[in-house]
Amino acid sequence: MFKQLGLIGCGLMGGSFALAMKQAGLVERVIGYSKSPSTTEKAKQLGVIDQAAESALLAVSGADVVLLAVPVAATESTFKAIRHLVSPGTLFMDVGSTKRDVVDAARRALKDRIGAFVPAHPIAGKELSGVQHADAQLYREQQVILTPLPQTRPELVEKARALWGALGARVRVMTPEAHDAAFAAVSHFPHLLAFAYFTGILQQQEAEEFLRLAGPGFRDFTRIAASDPAMWRDVLIANREEILKQSEFFRGALGVLEQTLRDCEGDALEALVRGVSEARSHWRMGSGRPR
Amino acid sequence: MFKQLGLIGCGLMGGSFALAMKQAGLVERVIGYSKSPSTTEKAKQLGVIDQAAESALLAVSGADVVLLAVPVAATESTFKAIRHLVSPGTLFMDVGSTKRDVVDAARRALKDRIGAFVPAHPIAGKELSGVQHADAQLYREQQVILTPLPQTRPELVEKARALWGALGARVRVMTPEAHDAAFAAVSHFPHLLAFAYFTGILQQQEAEEFLRLAGPGFRDFTRIAASDPAMWRDVLIANREEILKQSEFFRGALGVLEQTLRDCEGDALEALVRGVSEARSHWRMGSGRPR
Repeated sequence: MFKQLGLIGCGLMGGSFALAMKQAGLVERVIGYSKSPSTTEKAKQLGVIDQAAESALLAVSGADVVLLAVPVAATESTFKAIRHLVSPGTLFMDVGSTKRDVVDAARRALKDRIGAFVPAHPIAGKELSGVQHADAQLYREQQVILTPLPQTRPELVEKARALWGALGARVRVMTPEAHDAAFAAVSHFPHLLAFAYFTGILQQQEAEEFLRLAGPGFRDFTRIAASDPAMWRDVLIANREEILKQSEFFRGALGVLEQTLRDCEGDALEALVRGVSEARSHWRMGSGRPR
Repeated sequence: MFKQLGLIGCGLMGGSFALAMKQAGLVERVIGYSKSPSTTEKAKQLGVIDQAAESALLAVSGADVVLLAVPVAATESTFKAIRHLVSPGTLFMDVGSTKRDVVDAARRALKDRIGAFVPAHPIAGKELSGVQHADAQLYREQQVILTPLPQTRPELVEKARALWGALGARVRVMTPEAHDAAFAAVSHFPHLLAFAYFTGILQQQEAEEFLRLAGPGFRDFTRIAASDPAMWRDVLIANREEILKQSEFFRGALGVLEQTLRDCEGDALEALVRGVSEARSHWRMGSGRPR
């Protein structure tokens, strides 16, 4: 149970966290700050926060738990703005989709105060951003990855684990490096693929006709192409090395598949597709490779 | 209203068509044939067909509407097997995802009897195949593309249009060539991408760990990777030229995006992603490009 949540960034992720904590009865008061006053105002009207703070520092003042829910590129400046109030009596977390860059930014900004920060990545989201889409259920049944550093206070990691667990999330702990490699593979690179694929469609003269004919397969395949441009700019740039590594694997596999097409090698093609189809059919969210 | 449906191929697509016609009261009797007797038997037990035929030709005998719902690669041999009973008194349709190869096969097999054939492609399906997944609602609210030839009897095209319309589908007419180009873009090539992407994941040592961490974005992006290998082998080979053309557009777009990553060109990247994100956000199934 917490007394006061300091929420920095009142968007979809932050707003959903505040609502979830309130609904679970885990917090008495939420003080929110957003760069844009109109967002903070909206968050207050929607009951996401109880009180608006005029700065990030003021949002932190008096809080025993603080969530940074700002674009990852704003991590360093945000930590700099609040560093004087960063101390191990308070649990500090973020929600960034990349972790190495966030950790580096936190190190630079917080220096010896870094121990109070438990880097967190909740695997949840929507294509719709903004506090108006905040949802107390957003994190329920979803995974949350914590990537503590050697300096992170162990009792804060346990507090973070308990908090997310109480919101219905499944918590896993890994290093920032392992996190970024894995999410390049299963999230960041697929976003890049979806952006590239949709771009390729839009570049064709027949794009309008094509899009009229597209069905449910296309709808699901391109859903992530509607994601927030500013957020994905940051994620893709921050994790570019791992993403480009994933691209090598993908290009290799695409090349092989295309060669079977060019050569009309039906049997080879079918064998390749069968391996994928079976693996995907057996996969369930939150579990590994089948059998 | 039809007296007798001859169903050749009692799988998901054929079975769903039979069930839909029955439910709409559009047919009195369904005679079904499948290559595998156990499938035909199952279709009968499930009430999908009323009577099993021992050959494709016998399934056609006495029918006033015939649906070929066999793998596209089996189109020619199927038409050859039934050609003596192909006449304009009966409406012949298929459900193939590619149309140029189907039309070529029909021409070779049917020769001057081709006028009775109205090539059809219902944009519907599931990752689950087999008659046990047949669903009377499968075609409701979905698009069905008809690709008649110059020789196709206009009254049969109208009959086909009315029939699919009565099943709740939205019917469009286009040439086989335009059909194949469009579906390479919005369906076939995305399948190839999803197969290639998933293959790239499976090839990595950390595949199991990656798959455990994957979330809803990954789930939707890779849904089509679970599709039927035998069917997609045929589709991808049959439409390979258009698919490889799509690959050029895609590779160009991916190359540009990756270059912005390598150069850390955040603004350029964001602009590219924004264009896609907005277009995808405004897209609705069954409609073209927004505004």
